Amino acid sequence: MSEVDAAQLGARAEAMIKALGAISAEPGRLVRLFLTPEHRRAADLVAGWMREAGLTVSEDALGTVRGSIGQGPRLLIGSHIDTVIDAGQYDGPLGVIAGILAVSHFGGKPPLPIDVLAFGDEEGSRFPATMASSSACAGVFDTGTLGLADRKGVTLAEAIKAYGKNPDDIAKAAYRKDEVRAYAEVHIEQGPLLEFDGEPLGVVTGIVGQSRWRVTVTGEAGHAGTVPMRMRRDALAGAAEMALMIERVGRDNAASHMVATVGRFDVSPGATNIIPASVTFTIDLRDLDDRLRQSAIDTIRREARAVAEKRDLGVIFEVFHDAAAVASDGKLQQHFADAITALGHKPMRLPSGAGHDAQTMAQLCPSAMMFVRCRRGISHNPAEYASPADMGLAVAALIRFIERFASQ
Amino acid sequence: MSEVDAAQLGARAEAMIKALGAISAEPGRLVRLFLTPEHRRAADLVAGWMREAGLTVSEDALGTVRGSIGQGPRLLIGSHIDTVIDAGQYDGPLGVIAGILAVSHFGGKPPLPIDVLAFGDEEGSRFPATMASSSACAGVFDTGTLGLADRKGVTLAEAIKAYGKNPDDIAKAAYRKDEVRAYAEVHIEQGPLLEFDGEPLGVVTGIVGQSRWRVTVTGEAGHAGTVPMRMRRDALAGAAEMALMIERVGRDNAASHMVATVGRFDVSPGATNIIPASVTFTIDLRDLDDRLRQSAIDTIRREARAVAEKRDLGVIFEVFHDAAAVASDGKLQQHFADAITALGHKPMRLPSGAGHDAQTMAQLCPSAMMFVRCRRGISHNPAEYASPADMGLAVAALIRFIERFASQ
Repeated sequence: MSEVDAAQLGARAEAMIKALGAISAEPGRLVRLFLTPEHRRAADLVAGWMREAGLTVSEDALGTVRGSIGQGPRLLIGSHIDTVIDAGQYDGPLGVIAGILAVSHFGGKPPLPIDVLAFGDEEGSRFPATMASSSACAGVFDTGTLGLADRKGVTLAEAIKAYGKNPDDIAKAAYRKDEVRAYAEVHIEQGPLLEFDGEPLGVVTGIVGQSRWRVTVTGEAGHAGTVPMRMRRDALAGAAEMALMIERVGRDNAASHMVATVGRFDVSPGATNIIPASVTFTIDLRDLDDRLRQSAIDTIRREARAVAEKRDLGVIFEVFHDAAAVASDGKLQQHFADAITALGHKPMRLPSGAGHDAQTMAQLCPSAMMFVRCRRGISHNPAEYASPADMGLAVAALIRFIERFASQ
Repeated sequence: MSEVDAAQLGARAEAMIKALGAISAEPGRLVRLFLTPEHRRAADLVAGWMREAGLTVSEDALGTVRGSIGQGPRLLIGSHIDTVIDAGQYDGPLGVIAGILAVSHFGGKPPLPIDVLAFGDEEGSRFPATMASSSACAGVFDTGTLGLADRKGVTLAEAIKAYGKNPDDIAKAAYRKDEVRAYAEVHIEQGPLLEFDGEPLGVVTGIVGQSRWRVTVTGEAGHAGTVPMRMRRDALAGAAEMALMIERVGRDNAASHMVATVGRFDVSPGATNIIPASVTFTIDLRDLDDRLRQSAIDTIRREARAVAEKRDLGVIFEVFHDAAAVASDGKLQQHFADAITALGHKPMRLPSGAGHDAQTMAQLCPSAMMFVRCRRGISHNPAEYASPADMGLAVAALIRFIERFASQ
């Protein structure tokens, strides 16, 4: 195995994170959306780094920057360079930078052919769709999204043209299955588990399935001073009881890392002296086990109906998002775990509660991810932070992963 | 005792309610605000009815229409002719009409001197203050309110002048204590208790005290997918637990007609996939017994702090309204009860959960109110309704009340 200087890799990663983080549409906060001038500048910066690492650079019709080295079936290493609005600097860029630094480590002679991919649309911050870039590479791009418009009314198709590309070339972005062996992605955890356990790196067991529901509870408005407690049909009290029940269902399934969140809660009419007539709230429920997730949703619907019946309220459920879980490839997970162990750390296994390009690439080839500890689990926020030491360890582990994967 | 034809009185009341209800600032919905052209038209209509009933009409500096008959210490009978926005037709006008019809019944020879009062500002729909009119009559007008502005920036002082009155004359509106014997008010219940018990009329034991609090619960925002249940500081879940506790405190005090309402509940940031960082909600708590009300508030604050501590949340309480209860005069209550009994009905005793001019007039003289059943307890709504039969009974009971009061 080659020598690896994790501290030095961490320092280089840190400098590259800062350089990318300086490319923003707005002074004072980080905003880098898909197919914008900022995307262009970030792609050019990344392409330069790729060339320095010995990679041959190309771009597909969605602006994904592809750095290739070697001939034949290859390992893909990627992540994204777009951001949310008022973003942190690590979410996405770290995975691209880790891939470039790992390839650079091999001095132009990696142990197998590699493509490093910098996707431009993971967050879905500009158009109401996500992961267009990795979908194109995986050959599962939905052409229906070309007509979707951003907040200014510009469609995805128009934005592609304005970026100097041709929507007709999207199909050419797809890898053939016989061209690829696997997809690997390094990403900050965006959660607190690694920090809580004191570990720098973790192996992602899969990307959780998600259910998102809108629940509308209807009672009857009334004067807060004149309707006695026993005659009320208070939608807020009923919805509050349901919110606590949903939290309990999540807690009851903590062993499987289930999370259940009520994030919106809109009360009508919402006046101090009027008994609430209706409440619309959301449920966001995630679990790596799709059957457990479905069973939890069934429990929540049953118990919410019981609460509504007891309180003489109406309750309506509407699903607005449902995505199945995507398990990480077992062999790739083991290579990541071995790589982490080889560096003297414990390979914590944890699911990803957020979506990632890896779930799209899993439709093309075996996929897996490694998580990097981030401070207080904070992400999608300027306070997002991963230490140079942890980033250096992540690059070192990715190098070991490549060596193990090549020799398997 | 004089003969009373309640059905005929009800038909007259109904016609007068409709005539007043047709005076609005907007076509299609009832809006009649203090010191507006609509107030002027309504006051003129009421003044005409008063003259027909044998009353001598005058107006004070706040536009209160006063119809007087007889010399010496008098019984005041009043209510208001302003409305909320998109109002019902009965809230206020019924009390003024009942007074006029009762005086009319005596054919110019009531058994004691009477003033019927039509106040113009009970709802506080135009200026951010309520009961300016009855405050002036009771001699407790707060001159500080003259500088308050409506939504268009017009101050109360300016509006008084535009109405053709002089703010300097407000002090002259006050009755001397030796001029008045009592104040009586007939009003729709604005609640469901009379309908629930199948009674047309009720005796108001007093006007409840009110506490209004703003409660801010602070936790920590987090990614709905990546923060495990056990590490969350979810402000919404904590606030939901507090809302249910507040409902329970209200229910535990149902015997005293306590009501406790959480009417606003504002979640930040309020996104499907973000654990709520903070919730601001309101408490509206009312009871006729001020000590019970204070004790309930103490319980709520103590238990909310316990919830916050258990969940590692912050909680801040801010009071923004606190009004003491005003008990009805016992002798007047008994006269109303006897009057209702004489008509063959059961005099239900109940507190008023809403504010009324009677609570201001209680600072001048013994005061009491009689409630009239309204359909489904609905008020401040175009669906507000009291039947002609019930309104006729209310006028008949007011006539009997006057006779009993005069002969006491």
